[in-house]
Amino acid sequence: MSQPTIFVGGDAGIWRVLRIKTIIGSSLPESKHVNICGPGAPISAQSAWMLRGTPSYERYVNRKEHDELTTKTPPLGRPNATYAALIPVLKSEAWWNLSQDERRAIFEDHSEHIKTGLRYLPAIARKLYHCRDLGEPFDFLTWFEFAPAEECAFDELVATLRRSEEWKYVEREIDIRLVRS
Amino acid sequence: MSQPTIFVGGDAGIWRVLRIKTIIGSSLPESKHVNICGPGAPISAQSAWMLRGTPSYERYVNRKEHDELTTKTPPLGRPNATYAALIPVLKSEAWWNLSQDERRAIFEDHSEHIKTGLRYLPAIARKLYHCRDLGEPFDFLTWFEFAPAEECAFDELVATLRRSEEWKYVEREIDIRLVRS
Repeated sequence: MSQPTIFVGGDAGIWRVLRIKTIIGSSLPESKHVNICGPGAPISAQSAWMLRGTPSYERYVNRKEHDELTTKTPPLGRPNATYAALIPVLKSEAWWNLSQDERRAIFEDHSEHIKTGLRYLPAIARKLYHCRDLGEPFDFLTWFEFAPAEECAFDELVATLRRSEEWKYVEREIDIRLVRS
Repeated sequence: MSQPTIFVGGDAGIWRVLRIKTIIGSSLPESKHVNICGPGAPISAQSAWMLRGTPSYERYVNRKEHDELTTKTPPLGRPNATYAALIPVLKSEAWWNLSQDERRAIFEDHSEHIKTGLRYLPAIARKLYHCRDLGEPFDFLTWFEFAPAEECAFDELVATLRRSEEWKYVEREIDIRLVRS
């Protein structure tokens, strides 16, 4: 079993906030830094916000896609990947009330979520944390790491996803851009 | 978003334990009663064990199966359904490392998990709580309610599932039988 990881927005942390943009829904309080705390790590009492999520098993990816993703996905923490993005996402009840096959059809057949992500590998490293079952304000915390030179590519990636059918079900999304300090 | 529900094994609670059988893996401490505490409810400090799980979205069911399940599934709390079973289940890492299509194939195409459950509806009411992402000792808490006359049918249902290919991936399972007190 996996324990939740905690993302803490506050005055300290190895990731310094470059900008926070609320894409849809209500915003988060301002914070200058983001810290990532593994299970059991001490957490500063002084924080603007805390978001929990658990690295979990895959929900939509088939074996062929899984193998392609595994082959192409780089590790986190590459020395040149000094830029990061933390993008918490909440989807609507309408999304969660769809059956598994309907969600998969929208996710990949109509929206090409996996295919789109694959085009930006290995430049943009990605890790997904699940939080819907934790009673958190978001369903997912998505984490990306890339070199500063890849920022335009990353902007293109998120713009493509935000134009997709899948994103019609997104009710709250905040785009937090970070630089390693 | 859903908050976790807490199942508490202890000396008090509306469900009295008839018997606890460890099917596979390590057991739970003895308890005479089980109480079900909704989000935010006060929890007695004196408990033998506490297990948390969140009612969540469906992971394997397609639209046709979803509609059939919804039509046939009775509500919980039927006056004549005075027997219940709480069956916490932990699956292996090998299960969770399978891709979504591989898990679905084992779950239904090979093991007929949904088809088997449907045969016992509406006699046996069922509710599933997810806990893998919560860092709990189990992945699922399954809850069933039925009339005492349906006990043999329920034994048959769980025996059928335990013989399935899916159950080769079950590492820990405890079968707690209860009567409403």
